[in-house]
Amino acid sequence: MLTAPPYLQVSEATAKNNISKMVSKAEALNLELRPHFKTHQSSEIGEWFREYGIQAITVSSLKMAEYFADHGWEDITVAFPVNILESQLINTLNSRINLKILIADPSVIGFLESTLHAPLHVYVEIDPDYGRSGVSIHNKVLVSDVVNSIKSSKKLTFEGFYSHAGHSYKCRGKDEIKRLFAPLIRELSGFKNKFGGKLCWGDTPSCSVLEEFGEADQISPGNFVFYDWTQTRIDSCSYSDIAVTMQSPVIAKFPERMEILVHGGAVHFSKDSIQNEGNTLNFGQAINPKNPEDFSNYLKSISQEHGLISCSEDFFNNTNVGDTISIYPIHSCLTANLMRAYHTEDGKIIDHFGSGAPF
Amino acid sequence: MLTAPPYLQVSEATAKNNISKMVSKAEALNLELRPHFKTHQSSEIGEWFREYGIQAITVSSLKMAEYFADHGWEDITVAFPVNILESQLINTLNSRINLKILIADPSVIGFLESTLHAPLHVYVEIDPDYGRSGVSIHNKVLVSDVVNSIKSSKKLTFEGFYSHAGHSYKCRGKDEIKRLFAPLIRELSGFKNKFGGKLCWGDTPSCSVLEEFGEADQISPGNFVFYDWTQTRIDSCSYSDIAVTMQSPVIAKFPERMEILVHGGAVHFSKDSIQNEGNTLNFGQAINPKNPEDFSNYLKSISQEHGLISCSEDFFNNTNVGDTISIYPIHSCLTANLMRAYHTEDGKIIDHFGSGAPF
Repeated sequence: MLTAPPYLQVSEATAKNNISKMVSKAEALNLELRPHFKTHQSSEIGEWFREYGIQAITVSSLKMAEYFADHGWEDITVAFPVNILESQLINTLNSRINLKILIADPSVIGFLESTLHAPLHVYVEIDPDYGRSGVSIHNKVLVSDVVNSIKSSKKLTFEGFYSHAGHSYKCRGKDEIKRLFAPLIRELSGFKNKFGGKLCWGDTPSCSVLEEFGEADQISPGNFVFYDWTQTRIDSCSYSDIAVTMQSPVIAKFPERMEILVHGGAVHFSKDSIQNEGNTLNFGQAINPKNPEDFSNYLKSISQEHGLISCSEDFFNNTNVGDTISIYPIHSCLTANLMRAYHTEDGKIIDHFGSGAPF
Repeated sequence: MLTAPPYLQVSEATAKNNISKMVSKAEALNLELRPHFKTHQSSEIGEWFREYGIQAITVSSLKMAEYFADHGWEDITVAFPVNILESQLINTLNSRINLKILIADPSVIGFLESTLHAPLHVYVEIDPDYGRSGVSIHNKVLVSDVVNSIKSSKKLTFEGFYSHAGHSYKCRGKDEIKRLFAPLIRELSGFKNKFGGKLCWGDTPSCSVLEEFGEADQISPGNFVFYDWTQTRIDSCSYSDIAVTMQSPVIAKFPERMEILVHGGAVHFSKDSIQNEGNTLNFGQAINPKNPEDFSNYLKSISQEHGLISCSEDFFNNTNVGDTISIYPIHSCLTANLMRAYHTEDGKIIDHFGSGAPF
């Protein structure tokens, strides 16, 4: 039996094209691509990367690392700082695979000394003025202290510096990304020159548009495998590069407000949103099949299961109750995390981490 | 082995107290309580309601209805309009249980005529100026047409009117809720008096604070079983009524910005937020164990796995890396939907719909 929508559809061809382009770019710039698998969280989509020679990956939690270790990945960076409550899992994984993890707070170093069974590779996480996690890029004394503590530890191996500049998501256009990143990469390159190790740089916007990465050795973008509507607004991609769409059934039409109700809400898309020009919120960009350049149809609000699309006259008139429409997610990582499965265009179902029981 | 945090903890005593209060209120007002199970989505928590005499429930999708039918519930309202692509599941469920569903768009009536195997109970969904779903409360001609089409159908049984006034979530304080709802309930009572059937009224804020429900026969609030930080802001409950907290491990401290990083992001909490006084965004309200009245600690931003808490000096100084802190969700329904399991205070794990494979 065919699954009734809503479901998340993936285009294998588009995703592989995105992978291929990023692999070629990394090769041309002599960078190691360690793609972030938090976006797709799928063993099968992981295999698509292997076809392009990828051997080492990045994930966002130890449990996700365990999932990919179970699927044959042997070199995994957990791009999240050490959680000392998970020392048992750190030890287990560290004995199975080549595990690397981040240190963002020097207070964990002593704890790791006393609990690690074997040496562990660690990056110092540097906060590049994003304000989320890591030692501040401006706090040179602390950077030096942390690196030296790691280097003098018998249980820790200094891998280098890891930095995620998530404020690129606020940029609009390539020039703005370049202006934001050039000084940050220069500063991080200085750390590498001083302390050694590798410099790893993340985020899909900068990896999609920059041509200059200073002294960086590695890049670890994730979202680029699917992209999403937000990335088109940043100018990281074109809408035709987006590899996932929510397939959403049309439930009701409200002519007095030119709005369409779909079964597609916060439990499908997530509640991530961006602002349209004009400051209305957009929770998903509906595709007008008769006119792909009609960008006026979008999810104006969502609740748990309901999604409400504000429509152009053309789209409203040509859409009927019982149709299934395609909607680009605002944030494909969170949408995939909620849907926990992908449907290919030819009806095959692809797995997602967490499809089974969560405990 | 104990599960390491993050996990969602539920207080059975607090949840049962919330159920008990709503059951007593419904009895006192002679209303049938058909609680909305979309909040907890748990067969085991469903049993807590049976202890208080609940026999009939409300859910937000046909698949959720199927899950609860599998767990012995025989009278279920799906408070979402008919999706004609799911006619097979409608027929299956309608043959197993006493199924009720909503009609928001008259165009589905003809389709149901031709596909239903047996008569189906339907409510006409009325949009009480919320602007999400249903026939507009102001469009009396259309209301009359839809009711008459149902009444003249051999396959449909007119159950009455269903109305969800989600704009109550924008209210602040009991008086505002009362002012918003009194005229709406009066209008809906007029429909009931004219066309017969039952009048069902939803939403936790109004069911928590109103004492007057006009001609309503049924109420179907959901969130009240757990409540959440948003409900405290609306004045539907006190913080001590909130029955779920995210247990979030402290990963790093950043003294220069008085912020704490926890493992607790959009894949745990959801990206739902409310505005604090002062217009900062709040993605979760951290509890200061030394001072439950210190309401100045909150998740100021979240990404996929990271949560960043803006702290009072007292909370910052008394919290250490490796601690686990308790955070009230902004929207408990979406947090539970993401976590897909509950931990009781004595370490038992409770199921959630969708814990298994999603297909």
